[in-house]
Amino acid sequence: MPEHFQLLKTDSVTAARRGRLQTRHGVVETPIFMPVGTQGTVKAITPQHIQEIGAQIILGNTYHLNLRPTSELVKELGGLHAFMGWEGPILTDSGGFQVFSLAKLRDIREDGVAFQSHLDGAKLFLGPKEVMTIQANLGSDIAMVLDECPPWPCTRDECARAVERSFRWAKQCKEIATDNGFLAGGHHVFAIAQGSTFDDLRREAAESLASLDLPGYAVGGVSVGEPEPEMIKQVGATTPFMPADKPRYTMGLGTPPQILKMIALGVDMFDCVLPSRVARNGLVFTPDGPMNLRNEKYRTDPRPIAEGVTNYTSRFSRAYLRHLTVAGEMLSATLLTIHNLQFFIELTAQARAHIEAGDFGAWHRAWIARYEAGAAERLAGGK
Amino acid sequence: MPEHFQLLKTDSVTAARRGRLQTRHGVVETPIFMPVGTQGTVKAITPQHIQEIGAQIILGNTYHLNLRPTSELVKELGGLHAFMGWEGPILTDSGGFQVFSLAKLRDIREDGVAFQSHLDGAKLFLGPKEVMTIQANLGSDIAMVLDECPPWPCTRDECARAVERSFRWAKQCKEIATDNGFLAGGHHVFAIAQGSTFDDLRREAAESLASLDLPGYAVGGVSVGEPEPEMIKQVGATTPFMPADKPRYTMGLGTPPQILKMIALGVDMFDCVLPSRVARNGLVFTPDGPMNLRNEKYRTDPRPIAEGVTNYTSRFSRAYLRHLTVAGEMLSATLLTIHNLQFFIELTAQARAHIEAGDFGAWHRAWIARYEAGAAERLAGGK
Ligand SMILES: [Zn+2]
Ligand SMILES: [Zn+2]
Repeated sequence: MPEHFQLLKTDSVTAARRGRLQTRHGVVETPIFMPVGTQGTVKAITPQHIQEIGAQIILGNTYHLNLRPTSELVKELGGLHAFMGWEGPILTDSGGFQVFSLAKLRDIREDGVAFQSHLDGAKLFLGPKEVMTIQANLGSDIAMVLDECPPWPCTRDECARAVERSFRWAKQCKEIATDNGFLAGGHHVFAIAQGSTFDDLRREAAESLASLDLPGYAVGGVSVGEPEPEMIKQVGATTPFMPADKPRYTMGLGTPPQILKMIALGVDMFDCVLPSRVARNGLVFTPDGPMNLRNEKYRTDPRPIAEGVTNYTSRFSRAYLRHLTVAGEMLSATLLTIHNLQFFIELTAQARAHIEAGDFGAWHRAWIARYEAGAAERLAGGK
Repeated sequence: MPEHFQLLKTDSVTAARRGRLQTRHGVVETPIFMPVGTQGTVKAITPQHIQEIGAQIILGNTYHLNLRPTSELVKELGGLHAFMGWEGPILTDSGGFQVFSLAKLRDIREDGVAFQSHLDGAKLFLGPKEVMTIQANLGSDIAMVLDECPPWPCTRDECARAVERSFRWAKQCKEIATDNGFLAGGHHVFAIAQGSTFDDLRREAAESLASLDLPGYAVGGVSVGEPEPEMIKQVGATTPFMPADKPRYTMGLGTPPQILKMIALGVDMFDCVLPSRVARNGLVFTPDGPMNLRNEKYRTDPRPIAEGVTNYTSRFSRAYLRHLTVAGEMLSATLLTIHNLQFFIELTAQARAHIEAGDFGAWHRAWIARYEAGAAERLAGGK
């Protein structure tokens, strides 16, 4: 077993795992949800809030940080941790996904991706060398390799070519991170298994990448437009072929039930902009499903968002939070972001406790049932 | 001397005063700067931040809170303190000033002001009875009387009528606050001296209001468009005729030098949206004048905003704060608001210390000189 990851327990009923990941900036207990800090800030909250909500690790976006303020400037100012005032672990993506989703006029070549900045149209290029250099400049604790995320739907041939190219890029990223001392310095590099909806390609991707013996592995190319059952199926088609003694990460997705389902499939790490993004529009998560605080029925409601959920925001009434939201006050975004992120982080903490206690299977099914029943009831106008 | 206000010391060179005001929600050491919480939130920061920056008392805006969420709802939810999660003292204005500055189609009558809401055009009315009821609903520790703020410039006749009407309204407000037990319950009511640029009317206003023996007095109708020297002159034309044993408040204004000049004229309390408002645009205050963090020259600057200024924001570099500001991140507004409000609050704390030490006169002149020299140098492209 590699010394940076301890697999503490595997659930006997599901494939859920309880693990512990060592990084240069501290330990991460898994399964874990990671707040997203796109531009060097977890939107609307301070680093102190990040700590208070129990975050163990956050995510930074290479694509955004490289455009602005640039990774060279971040390096000059002591790296991303010092720059943004967060001394816990940081995972950075490779920037590849944003090239596919945000950039203009992208051109995928064998050596990388040429594209234009969505900010000012500047011509840029990201190859294995570039993404590893940028993430080294940022001082990432966990750097992601460059990969090609095929669109959904895509043909088998297109997908096979993306899997092949992603493997070559992953191999090159590993070589670069070995040569420049990044890996030896205790930074981790995670590879990404693509394969779209083709089970055999998912397996091939996972197995070929496993041969690179990298510190961790991710399931990529999910939640790119496909229906939810398909998404969960893809994760389930990938995890069995990932090394059991390395951490597993599903990139960029998850409602609370989806996260629990993926934990049951053996995924250890999650990130998603959903809780922050919807918070800025007045939507909050509760054990009984999502709740839209703009709803008139909360106008005089003196209760906190959800009974039994304790965080900085829980001292305020639904009526007050609704008032802030309707009035367009920034404090709404701050308080609802605190609530939503803490809710997701706490959900993974509960999952850890139930894996340890040995009742994760029953617990996560009951949790999802209550959540979905509550969501349906709210939709129907109740609660 | 009334028991709610202790005049601890009066400066021997200037008219500066060191005082202590008792309220239902605790003690306020004066001189003091009060952050503005327009819509039930000090914009962009949490109540915890308000406490951390050393705020002793905050201001709420009756006009805004009465339109949304309404003072009845705030009352139902336990009053403004409980509603917004701030258990320190709260001063509320009467709403009159916003009627003059924001509302549409206002009509000033002998019994009050009829106007249309700036939000939805609803027809509303504020008279002495209404403003005192609303502020009682909010649970204000310090309620302001309704007054008429004449425009600048205005004729002597217009001004004299506004002073007269403001006196009548103040008298009615006192009667209402006596009859409904507001004053007996330990809430304070402050009257407002108008008089525009007419020294004799300022004196008349201050003296006639003094006869009402209210718990405090404010200078109103300043900073409504007149040049700064005129503004300071108006304050100086009013304070000598206000009761020495009551707290004095200048409403809604002040750059740091202006606040120090007004302290030297014997003013004890200040509020202003300036530090919060400009923070949301990247402007911060320093002992060497204001600094625009959007400036390119701070792009790589590793220093905090200002040497010797310590608050939550001082752990971040100018380069990081500039990045957040340029990237349009909400965290910029939060961190710069924390800095600016703490800077204003700390300025009044320093003023208190120097009044106690007996060197306020020389200190405040030196402080203003450094600030203005720095501001000039920055304007000229230095620093
Ligand atoms: Zn560090
Ligand atoms: Zn209270």
